[in-house]
Amino acid sequence: MDQPPRLRGVLAPVVTPFTHDLCPDPERFIAHCRWLLSQNCGLAVFGTNSEANSLSVEERIALLEALLAAGLDPARMMPGTGCCALTDSVRLTEHAVKAGCAGVLMLPPFYYKDVTDDGLYRHFAEVVERVGDARLRIYLYHIPPVAVVGITPTLVERLMKRYPTAIAGMKDSSGDWSNTKTMLDAFAASGFDVFPGSESFLLAGMRHGAAGCISATANVNPGAIDRLYREWRGADADRQQEALNVVRKTVGQYVMIPGLKQVIAHYAHDPAWVTVRPPLTELTAAQAQQVLAELQQLGFTMPGLERVAA
Amino acid sequence: MDQPPRLRGVLAPVVTPFTHDLCPDPERFIAHCRWLLSQNCGLAVFGTNSEANSLSVEERIALLEALLAAGLDPARMMPGTGCCALTDSVRLTEHAVKAGCAGVLMLPPFYYKDVTDDGLYRHFAEVVERVGDARLRIYLYHIPPVAVVGITPTLVERLMKRYPTAIAGMKDSSGDWSNTKTMLDAFAASGFDVFPGSESFLLAGMRHGAAGCISATANVNPGAIDRLYREWRGADADRQQEALNVVRKTVGQYVMIPGLKQVIAHYAHDPAWVTVRPPLTELTAAQAQQVLAELQQLGFTMPGLERVAA
Repeated sequence: MDQPPRLRGVLAPVVTPFTHDLCPDPERFIAHCRWLLSQNCGLAVFGTNSEANSLSVEERIALLEALLAAGLDPARMMPGTGCCALTDSVRLTEHAVKAGCAGVLMLPPFYYKDVTDDGLYRHFAEVVERVGDARLRIYLYHIPPVAVVGITPTLVERLMKRYPTAIAGMKDSSGDWSNTKTMLDAFAASGFDVFPGSESFLLAGMRHGAAGCISATANVNPGAIDRLYREWRGADADRQQEALNVVRKTVGQYVMIPGLKQVIAHYAHDPAWVTVRPPLTELTAAQAQQVLAELQQLGFTMPGLERVAA
Repeated sequence: MDQPPRLRGVLAPVVTPFTHDLCPDPERFIAHCRWLLSQNCGLAVFGTNSEANSLSVEERIALLEALLAAGLDPARMMPGTGCCALTDSVRLTEHAVKAGCAGVLMLPPFYYKDVTDDGLYRHFAEVVERVGDARLRIYLYHIPPVAVVGITPTLVERLMKRYPTAIAGMKDSSGDWSNTKTMLDAFAASGFDVFPGSESFLLAGMRHGAAGCISATANVNPGAIDRLYREWRGADADRQQEALNVVRKTVGQYVMIPGLKQVIAHYAHDPAWVTVRPPLTELTAAQAQQVLAELQQLGFTMPGLERVAA
């Protein structure tokens, strides 16, 4: 089988809904994914903002199976498959590739610190070799503020050289534009797709050859982010970028993940959405009120959400 | 069933041997555990130095089952069961408790950073409630240099108050004696067993009410560490501590885990022991030579290792 077309544009690390007893909720998950697709937003399920690292391997597999069973298109999916344990990363990656996912977003193994590029190279190489599937397309996930262990340009170069089809790109969630620019300048021209990990760098990214962005806020503001992705050459682009930044700042002013869930709960009229799995905690009532009041003041909406969620 | 007696004394985070194709090697694992028990060393299997975070849940369960099938006493075991995902921690903890293990060593969920004590409390509380077994005895694992997410005295106090039998103690691998002393002063008198995470703090720990220590180096130097544990009140104690420190410094002068495996490979005449799973890498030949030469100069031995390993 051939590789599906490359993912470009805007993707959301889809937030994972939980039932009141903290189990993943496939129905709400499917509904939210459907809505994101309706907004032209790709599905980077099982990212950091998906609380994926609070899910077991089996829970991730079951949720992906639920999306497929509901008829959602795997060619629009980039599931997160990078775990601490080599065998877990292999298992999830294999499952995603066999399901026809366009790519996988792969954290480096993040428990052991001060590991070498040699060790990380061996890890990713083992995953590629063990999965052994020509359709495999890995997006390396660089998020040092959370994973601490990061992806250096030297590592990217070495992996690309050895696995030119499997090493397809990266998500840069360093929050550091100079790092994203370094990666873009070094690798974008050779077909390595760099996605900034926040829409705050979408315009700057597109001006330097980015493939789009993968951003938490795309869970709630996908339409506007996608519009800037399509119109970044327009005269209006800087103004659009500023507007995106204001929404992002508002939603994430306390803690991003419970903030996103609070916003979805409100606009979907579905309070169950606020639940997060420990170690995270929900926003306080006062925090929630503040976020929602500020969004209202901005005239923020989530068009079509209620219909799809119903 | 009653709880097994409390673990005290010296425990090793047992290093995990791998075959040449990076699979866990139950035979060598059993042999090494037998040798440790013969040296009066308890088995904190699946700790940081066990590369446990590079193992899947199934791999840990299979290795523990192998130890039990080989007749090793679970009352001498404190397996590591703390994962990023609540459901994984519950599954491993449940398995260990049902197997009759004396306790479990539990990392906090360590992917998400800047989490609150409230969130960590909820996590540990969920594990206790879901396991729902009166035999459960949790040792909280504080290792901020690696896990980044740590265990504060406030969290310990809150958990002990709510779960006085389940919250049994902690391993403090902060490497910061003042933190260990704070924990000892605050909780040791109420029966909360504090294990420093290195034998370098064994003597100081015992003088302030520690329950022993859980240390990487106990994989190779268990007899001498156990001797200081038993003789800490003796006139010779400070000299013993100094000798332990020299061995630790020698073994861990490059990177601790591959250093330990190199030493075992050498003294067991079993080169296969050097293998580590990515993201770790083996010592270079020059590093290995240096470590072994220095140990020889110290007159270091691992008495009985060959016999048990054979």
